[in-house]
Amino acid sequence: MEGQVDTALTGDGRFFQRSGPFSLEKLAECAGARIVGDEGSDPDKLYVGVAPLQSAGPQEVSFLDNRRYAPLLNQTRAGIVLLGQAFVDRLPKGTIGLICPAPYLAWARVAGLFHPPPAVAPGIHPTALVGVDAVIDSSAQIGPFVVIGAGVSVGAKTRIDSHVVIGDGVRIGAHCRIGTHASVSHTLMGDRVTLLAGVRIGQEGFGFAVGPEGFETVPQLGRVVLEDGVEVGANSTIDRGSSQDTVIGAGSRLDNLVQIGHNVRLGRCCIVVSQAGISGSTELGDFVTVAAQAGLIGHIRIGDKARIGAQCGVMSDVDAGADVIGSPAMPFREFFRNVAVLRRLAKKTPREGGGEA
Amino acid sequence: MEGQVDTALTGDGRFFQRSGPFSLEKLAECAGARIVGDEGSDPDKLYVGVAPLQSAGPQEVSFLDNRRYAPLLNQTRAGIVLLGQAFVDRLPKGTIGLICPAPYLAWARVAGLFHPPPAVAPGIHPTALVGVDAVIDSSAQIGPFVVIGAGVSVGAKTRIDSHVVIGDGVRIGAHCRIGTHASVSHTLMGDRVTLLAGVRIGQEGFGFAVGPEGFETVPQLGRVVLEDGVEVGANSTIDRGSSQDTVIGAGSRLDNLVQIGHNVRLGRCCIVVSQAGISGSTELGDFVTVAAQAGLIGHIRIGDKARIGAQCGVMSDVDAGADVIGSPAMPFREFFRNVAVLRRLAKKTPREGGGEA
Amino acid sequence: MEGQVDTALTGDGRFFQRSGPFSLEKLAECAGARIVGDEGSDPDKLYVGVAPLQSAGPQEVSFLDNRRYAPLLNQTRAGIVLLGQAFVDRLPKGTIGLICPAPYLAWARVAGLFHPPPAVAPGIHPTALVGVDAVIDSSAQIGPFVVIGAGVSVGAKTRIDSHVVIGDGVRIGAHCRIGTHASVSHTLMGDRVTLLAGVRIGQEGFGFAVGPEGFETVPQLGRVVLEDGVEVGANSTIDRGSSQDTVIGAGSRLDNLVQIGHNVRLGRCCIVVSQAGISGSTELGDFVTVAAQAGLIGHIRIGDKARIGAQCGVMSDVDAGADVIGSPAMPFREFFRNVAVLRRLAKKTPREGGGEA
Repeated sequence: MEGQVDTALTGDGRFFQRSGPFSLEKLAECAGARIVGDEGSDPDKLYVGVAPLQSAGPQEVSFLDNRRYAPLLNQTRAGIVLLGQAFVDRLPKGTIGLICPAPYLAWARVAGLFHPPPAVAPGIHPTALVGVDAVIDSSAQIGPFVVIGAGVSVGAKTRIDSHVVIGDGVRIGAHCRIGTHASVSHTLMGDRVTLLAGVRIGQEGFGFAVGPEGFETVPQLGRVVLEDGVEVGANSTIDRGSSQDTVIGAGSRLDNLVQIGHNVRLGRCCIVVSQAGISGSTELGDFVTVAAQAGLIGHIRIGDKARIGAQCGVMSDVDAGADVIGSPAMPFREFFRNVAVLRRLAKKTPREGGGEA
Repeated sequence: MEGQVDTALTGDGRFFQRSGPFSLEKLAECAGARIVGDEGSDPDKLYVGVAPLQSAGPQEVSFLDNRRYAPLLNQTRAGIVLLGQAFVDRLPKGTIGLICPAPYLAWARVAGLFHPPPAVAPGIHPTALVGVDAVIDSSAQIGPFVVIGAGVSVGAKTRIDSHVVIGDGVRIGAHCRIGTHASVSHTLMGDRVTLLAGVRIGQEGFGFAVGPEGFETVPQLGRVVLEDGVEVGANSTIDRGSSQDTVIGAGSRLDNLVQIGHNVRLGRCCIVVSQAGISGSTELGDFVTVAAQAGLIGHIRIGDKARIGAQCGVMSDVDAGADVIGSPAMPFREFFRNVAVLRRLAKKTPREGGGEA
Repeated sequence: MEGQVDTALTGDGRFFQRSGPFSLEKLAECAGARIVGDEGSDPDKLYVGVAPLQSAGPQEVSFLDNRRYAPLLNQTRAGIVLLGQAFVDRLPKGTIGLICPAPYLAWARVAGLFHPPPAVAPGIHPTALVGVDAVIDSSAQIGPFVVIGAGVSVGAKTRIDSHVVIGDGVRIGAHCRIGTHASVSHTLMGDRVTLLAGVRIGQEGFGFAVGPEGFETVPQLGRVVLEDGVEVGANSTIDRGSSQDTVIGAGSRLDNLVQIGHNVRLGRCCIVVSQAGISGSTELGDFVTVAAQAGLIGHIRIGDKARIGAQCGVMSDVDAGADVIGSPAMPFREFFRNVAVLRRLAKKTPREGGGEA
């Protein structure tokens, strides 16, 4: 089937809105960038879109941020490239450079200029069910088959996609976006919160005691607090607190399939990459990064700006600013030294039973 | 936004029902506990709720179970604390102790006394679709947009939340609770089964053979059996058997984002923590614990009461009662000795190319 | 409850269609197998179904593929067993053998003969919502509460189960099956694609840049391309590309709870087992296997036919045909040698502080 699909098409009109075209001047202003290499170019030329280096054409804007892709710069046919000062000499002739200190940030803004997110279409779909005493801002968009419980509040310009279920009493701020099939209960949500499809927020945590006839459920009586600007990836799960709250600090971003246990607290601007899990009552400071598939046991503290490596197994507190990896977690340097030492030892050690080393 | 949110509010009236108030005598009876430190206290005093040690007030009940939090006992303002005999001397003046052998179990019961789960509201929502020959007990609650297939049976006092999809022929017992957006097919379910939001039960397992032109699907002809009292966390997945059944034994509890492959069998009262995965045809005995992010390959046996540590990679049978961790799995003691030995060796070993050790 | 459940019932009539009965000749033809041990058997005998070795009766067909289960062959009461030449001598008297080079493939076909998948029932359920300019083939089946966006195309004999949400512009080929609660956006899908319940396809990837006031979202302007015959397990997530596309090659099979990041490319007939994750922009060749819970960092290349072991942490390119395991990834042989060497060293090393070794 896919022989005819051009898999490098950026911003396919079937799926994305398109704005523009825009002039070099406008793009430089949006990027906060300095123009180089525009000598002799047509000052009235307009640019129509964005694309990666390998497929961008003369009317498109591209970018270079990861030096791994620097070799692509020589052959690019892009009209404009956003890039750092260090790579300016490698620009091919005829390609204009927009020099900026943070090319990826500039790309975010220029790409958003060409492809603004779809506008919120105010109104409540006739198939949606809204509970008593719910207050839905008149500028909010509520999709088909949505179920909103009693006493819920939904702020201005918030968009709730089809099949979302919001439990009684939940508070949702302004400019939020809740993806299809998400469910949210027992939650207080700030502004600009984004939940992708299938997230589960506020269900009871994993709490039970051993009774004489098996496990007995411990009532989970806390809430979830999602502060302003939090984003949660598809099919991730955040349990409500048991007696305190589960709190995700302002600006934090969680990827897909992440698990957050009851009473966990994340500070501001934490990053939790896909399939990582944080067990109950663990607390993270601000700007902590937890890489993919890492796991943190419960009841520990992770200091500000600590970085937890991929697949790391964290069993005890981590200091602010520390870089750890491995299972059990240890400093990056120690982990890779251990790996190297073991490799050397294994090479030196004759096999049991003799034979080749 | 969240400056004004009191994140220690337990049992927020927007989200939880509240019962009571209750007397000390009633609470002691509920907890099965012995009263200490009530000399001079008002026998008619009533208590209104539960809260953690750090936020409980004089009219609230708290508990101490994890000794990590024992330092909080000195400063608590709680009226009553459920705790073990060992900590009774640390109770502050004016706080009554309820001494019990299992404070966490007592907490489960007292918290449930103050905050009973919402009652089941009998009836089938008018937007729900119920297939031919389905038998729904008149005391069951079927939520909006639920789809129930042909020939399904739903027992007394069972609650099925909005957007749940139940496939043809599924049998659901009494006092079950099925969370929003869950899907269940090819399944026989006992009583008191709880499925949280977004679980996937009974879909076809990962079975295919290599044919001349690619993979060919192997029909998955077994079922899922969820015995009495099983609980499954949000977004977890349990595949139906291929030719036998996938069986989750009575009282077992699975956390969020857990994967159970086809033909897996869990005994009674097993615990599988979040993001753990059990591959096809593996069998667990009774009271087995599988910690977070652990993985078990297929076709192995895990003995009764074995404990599989977090992130453990189990490649072969595990004896009853064994404690294993690491990838590949080994006894706890061996694992931590290996970690210590490697650390010491790495410290002693000069770096390649010389320089500091 | 479950005392009376026969957990070895294969193809329970409540859940599966049944075809047949079939003659030995017909079954041999379907399996592409050679008949042995039918001397003296009734040529008109008919067989009614399939079952595993331990529960199959004289009118049923079973199979042996994994030599782990060879001891079951002696006691089987199966009428027919599909198996390889090597085990023919172990067939019990009265059991007919169907000798074939690939018994598991033959089993797939014979099981499918007795239990064909349910037929597609053409039509759009009256509760489904279909957007403007959507083109739904008249032979397609659209279930209850499905939401199909504007401009979507759905091919012949495709079945879309209840509560599925398809975003604007999505293209779905023929003979596809989309499980309940799945959501698909920004996607081009070939023929014979199967998505199980709860999959999330096409949502925005995890892309953001660090701005002066926190993270800023990078518009995700690519698509997802699912080529012919792709299958995706329950609750798995595939993010759309950021500027290029995320591509899953023809015939590839992904298990449950798998994460595929933006711009990832899988070649033909790759296998990704449950809870594995592949980070952004990583490329896999053809016939690559990624075992359960393995994780691949972004921006690397995995060669054709490479095999990534369970829980493996892959931080750099992997050659075609390589077998790697461990975190960080290393060749299988090296990994298990390291494990053995460390175990021996640990046994030899006296504990710090003296005492027993």
